[in-house]
Amino acid sequence: MSKRKEFRDLSTVEEAHAAIESLDLDPGVETVDLDAADGRVLAERVDAGLDVPGFDRSALDGYALHARETFGAGETDPATFTVVGTVEAGERPATDLGAGEAVEIATGAVMPPDADAMVAVERTDRDGDTLLVRTAVTPGENVMAAGADIAAGERALGPGTRLTSREIGLLSALGVDEVPVRAKPRVGIVSTGDELVRPGETVDSGRGQIYDVNSYAVAAGVREAGGEPVVYPHAGDDMAEMERALREAADECDLVLSSGSTSASAVDVVYRVIEEQGDLLLHGVSIKPGKPMLVGQFNESAYIGLPGYPVSALSIFRTFVAPAIRRAAGRAAPPSATVAGRMAVRERHEEGRHRLVPVGLVTDGNGDTLVYPVDKGSGATTSLVEADGIVEMPADVSYLDRDERVSVALFSPDVRPPTVFGVGEDDPLLSRLLDRLDRPRYLGHGSRVGRRRLRDDVSDVAVVSTADEVESGTELGGWTREWGLVVLAGNPAGIEGLADLVERDLRFVNRSTASGLRTSLANALAALADERGVDRHDLVDAIDGFDFAVESHESPARRVVAGDADAGLGLRATAEKLDCGFVSVGEERVRVLANPSRTEKPGVERLRAELDDIGDLVGALPGFGTVDDR
Amino acid sequence: MSKRKEFRDLSTVEEAHAAIESLDLDPGVETVDLDAADGRVLAERVDAGLDVPGFDRSALDGYALHARETFGAGETDPATFTVVGTVEAGERPATDLGAGEAVEIATGAVMPPDADAMVAVERTDRDGDTLLVRTAVTPGENVMAAGADIAAGERALGPGTRLTSREIGLLSALGVDEVPVRAKPRVGIVSTGDELVRPGETVDSGRGQIYDVNSYAVAAGVREAGGEPVVYPHAGDDMAEMERALREAADECDLVLSSGSTSASAVDVVYRVIEEQGDLLLHGVSIKPGKPMLVGQFNESAYIGLPGYPVSALSIFRTFVAPAIRRAAGRAAPPSATVAGRMAVRERHEEGRHRLVPVGLVTDGNGDTLVYPVDKGSGATTSLVEADGIVEMPADVSYLDRDERVSVALFSPDVRPPTVFGVGEDDPLLSRLLDRLDRPRYLGHGSRVGRRRLRDDVSDVAVVSTADEVESGTELGGWTREWGLVVLAGNPAGIEGLADLVERDLRFVNRSTASGLRTSLANALAALADERGVDRHDLVDAIDGFDFAVESHESPARRVVAGDADAGLGLRATAEKLDCGFVSVGEERVRVLANPSRTEKPGVERLRAELDDIGDLVGALPGFGTVDDR
Repeated sequence: MSKRKEFRDLSTVEEAHAAIESLDLDPGVETVDLDAADGRVLAERVDAGLDVPGFDRSALDGYALHARETFGAGETDPATFTVVGTVEAGERPATDLGAGEAVEIATGAVMPPDADAMVAVERTDRDGDTLLVRTAVTPGENVMAAGADIAAGERALGPGTRLTSREIGLLSALGVDEVPVRAKPRVGIVSTGDELVRPGETVDSGRGQIYDVNSYAVAAGVREAGGEPVVYPHAGDDMAEMERALREAADECDLVLSSGSTSASAVDVVYRVIEEQGDLLLHGVSIKPGKPMLVGQFNESAYIGLPGYPVSALSIFRTFVAPAIRRAAGRAAPPSATVAGRMAVRERHEEGRHRLVPVGLVTDGNGDTLVYPVDKGSGATTSLVEADGIVEMPADVSYLDRDERVSVALFSPDVRPPTVFGVGEDDPLLSRLLDRLDRPRYLGHGSRVGRRRLRDDVSDVAVVSTADEVESGTELGGWTREWGLVVLAGNPAGIEGLADLVERDLRFVNRSTASGLRTSLANALAALADERGVDRHDLVDAIDGFDFAVESHESPARRVVAGDADAGLGLRATAEKLDCGFVSVGEERVRVLANPSRTEKPGVERLRAELDDIGDLVGALPGFGTVDDR
Repeated sequence: MSKRKEFRDLSTVEEAHAAIESLDLDPGVETVDLDAADGRVLAERVDAGLDVPGFDRSALDGYALHARETFGAGETDPATFTVVGTVEAGERPATDLGAGEAVEIATGAVMPPDADAMVAVERTDRDGDTLLVRTAVTPGENVMAAGADIAAGERALGPGTRLTSREIGLLSALGVDEVPVRAKPRVGIVSTGDELVRPGETVDSGRGQIYDVNSYAVAAGVREAGGEPVVYPHAGDDMAEMERALREAADECDLVLSSGSTSASAVDVVYRVIEEQGDLLLHGVSIKPGKPMLVGQFNESAYIGLPGYPVSALSIFRTFVAPAIRRAAGRAAPPSATVAGRMAVRERHEEGRHRLVPVGLVTDGNGDTLVYPVDKGSGATTSLVEADGIVEMPADVSYLDRDERVSVALFSPDVRPPTVFGVGEDDPLLSRLLDRLDRPRYLGHGSRVGRRRLRDDVSDVAVVSTADEVESGTELGGWTREWGLVVLAGNPAGIEGLADLVERDLRFVNRSTASGLRTSLANALAALADERGVDRHDLVDAIDGFDFAVESHESPARRVVAGDADAGLGLRATAEKLDCGFVSVGEERVRVLANPSRTEKPGVERLRAELDDIGDLVGALPGFGTVDDR
């Protein structure tokens, strides 16, 4: 392994903010057409170039006349006029107004010369050209004078104004069809790392390839912050190519982000380019996750190096980089993206580094917001969507107590707690059932974890399998599923049941102990041991792969399909979906249990209603059944 | 005037919502590339198609080995291994692991076959190929198992999920490069009205032409709500052409919006098309503004007719149409776009119709939110940007009292009160000064209105001219400006002063009585009358156009340039800007006065600081000066 730079002198969070604020990301000004201007930020003041309205305009349907000639008129004592013409909107008034004359005129039309007021049609009676006016009006009444809305020379909109439909409306009224706006800061994204493959291509897992998560995710973050992302092609493992990509990005962009590789040679290239061509302002920050952040500049571009793990990269992006892009774009910080809540569990960490703790939100039975840490390790990408925001733990804080009040910085202002939060079995019927709910959150961590999260008052519901446990929640409903051994199509090995796994030289793939299927398997093996009068542990030890546990309900079957095993623990539905053979062993019951204090939550009630109506889902999945004895 | 349809049976607000909810705007599903998917709404569930990670992955830099061989190892009692190889990220492990062997391995790299744990490099000492391991590890420790993040077959994201950078990250990790999303509802915008001209073209004010405000403003609103606007070309005054545009829009779009003309013939075309080809569900709503809303369907498209006035059109769009577009796009309502405040003034209306009252927000000295109505008449476009939101007044409520608590539906969640709110003189130096503030709001309604709004505790500051009033606010600063008569370049009429206006046959253009300039003029004329020993009213009556008052500080000069007058009341700076001649009459002082209870507001303090530093602004504007005797 080549020598890595060590992050011995870590900068503080404040120093990191200051270093990034010192970078120049100013993208300048560009002119855009009005129909593409919404969402942009005005770069210069816009003064009205003309009067709006451009003429004295009638504010209602009625008659234009001389106000002084209505003096004293009333309901019982009308003034009499002669109608001498008509003006519709968009017409030039043809008629001058003599004494005692009136012109019929539509809302929005031009007032005839000399006429100085409008009488509403409802306050008149007309017979041929004779008009009785049953009210008195004052000069200017029911007329919008030229320039009364906004007059030529007046300040219409100031620099820094974010253009929404309302400002677009005002600019339209001024006849403006293009506007000077702040250009979007161009942000180049260079991903370094031999092991990264772009989505859509094929990964070779055997040589450790993974999909590049950061390029598209950071690009989306750049857009959300008001920047324009430019994703540069992968340089692969050619160091010269990578250096070229970095230099090209610096030439073309206001800011270059490289999302870090774990490969030492790639890191070295980044260091070399910056040290040769620019300045490294900051090198390692005392924050977790995100320690290996770099800040600098080269080739007249700003540069920030993000950590490689997606959760770390997006945390650092959100905390440090997005505010800088927003500033450069002239965007205000998003409003009030903070909620208060209390910790659902205790969270402990070693002191010494400022921590950004990803957390999820859940509403308890009283409508209060509970906050729980989402920690799947910083290499996990699912925590990107399982968390709702960040709780900051300063370097000198070692724990957050259960029930402690905390402030959560939401990932975006429109983040809300899920309507229902469940933990438990990974199940194909459940996946479809969840599609019928609005914003559910479900973690398929297995029955065991599901029970624990329910007991700890974190989750609303648990989805558990096997009937032999004493369940503490309120049962909302459930279903049955047929399980057994998933084998190759046509069952070429002629496997007939669990006994074959024990007696023959077959490779098996199991599920983890968190899964209810694993418990059902253990129960079935215990019964087989009893039947044979042998110790169950001897039975288990005889199965090649019993300890080889994989993650999801489909995983064992996929191992079989890939030729890595002869049989896998699984469901009939999975076997049929993947065109495999199936050796049935038993049927187990899946129960949906609610936290008793949250059965009134609308999301839980909705789930219960959907559970009462799962006939079509059960019918569509082979081996699934409804529970009759509820 | 042709017979108009009368809105005799107005529908209630609830009926209008119900009619719009009954429309089918469903745009269906489309597939988009991942790099264009952020902001879109997932149309279908996405299950993981592969394991993430796709291999057992090292979670740190260190050594892969058999965990059982570290049993009992510790700081003082290390276990000894032989290093037999190296695996970097992106490499295929070349080495099988024998007894007592270890492999050096980088974070993210593939675990060699048989190795089941990682020891961190920090817990080892190495000398050549000999490795001392000073800790014990358990099977799986520091390894992320294949599928542990998310396994093939697991539910990754549900339908209805809004895709942000986080979801884009997860989809990237799954190798997904295109996703099924809800299509954006296509919304056709047909503007009807002979008098409308698109921005960028030339308006003929003489025949009542105005710029089309609604097309671009509503298009921006459609985009904000998640739809895709299609603006159709103006049909002009050709009724057959208009009918064709409506039908074309209905063929191509999920929803057609026509933004109403005030011209009777255009309205008739809309009615005829809908009655012949579809259904009119609703025809007039008991709401103000917005009564003439239409709801219906034709040619298999939904149809909503918006009122013609921009403020009314955008109110109705926001209240009724945007929610329907959001629903069709699968977007949630924007979060918490509501603030509470208290009325700064009393607001009175006739009962009988539900009212959407546009209001502005201002923060008082205690940080409380005050709410004031913005009412410039529904024909005004400036109230689009002078208001921050809407207060609803039900049909049976006739007034909102001063200090009454109200809830304001903001135009968007990121609306915030201005940092400083001023009312008063329209002035070119002030326009530039405001550019230096962050989100100011300023209404150039003249000194008189400025003083009243300050006295009523509505505004933070007033900007007033003329020195003879006893001012009640706290003076923050000010400047002087030279005023007089703006005449044609070269002063062809040879005007020498105010006396010429009185004595000669000259056409004059005045400012309104709200303007400080008007007061300065009146004072100068009073002085002239005293000098001559005549009645000032006789002097004023002798000036042709003294009562012809226009709106902004530039308006009289522009009338002179247009040939409509010989002289206009104005500033030397304006005369020079518009290349006019100038006859100086006097100098007046402009004062910036703060509400005494709000001098500590940060926005007011910032304004005071900028006022202390206006030397460059004064220098750039001819006839402006600093005030020396503060």
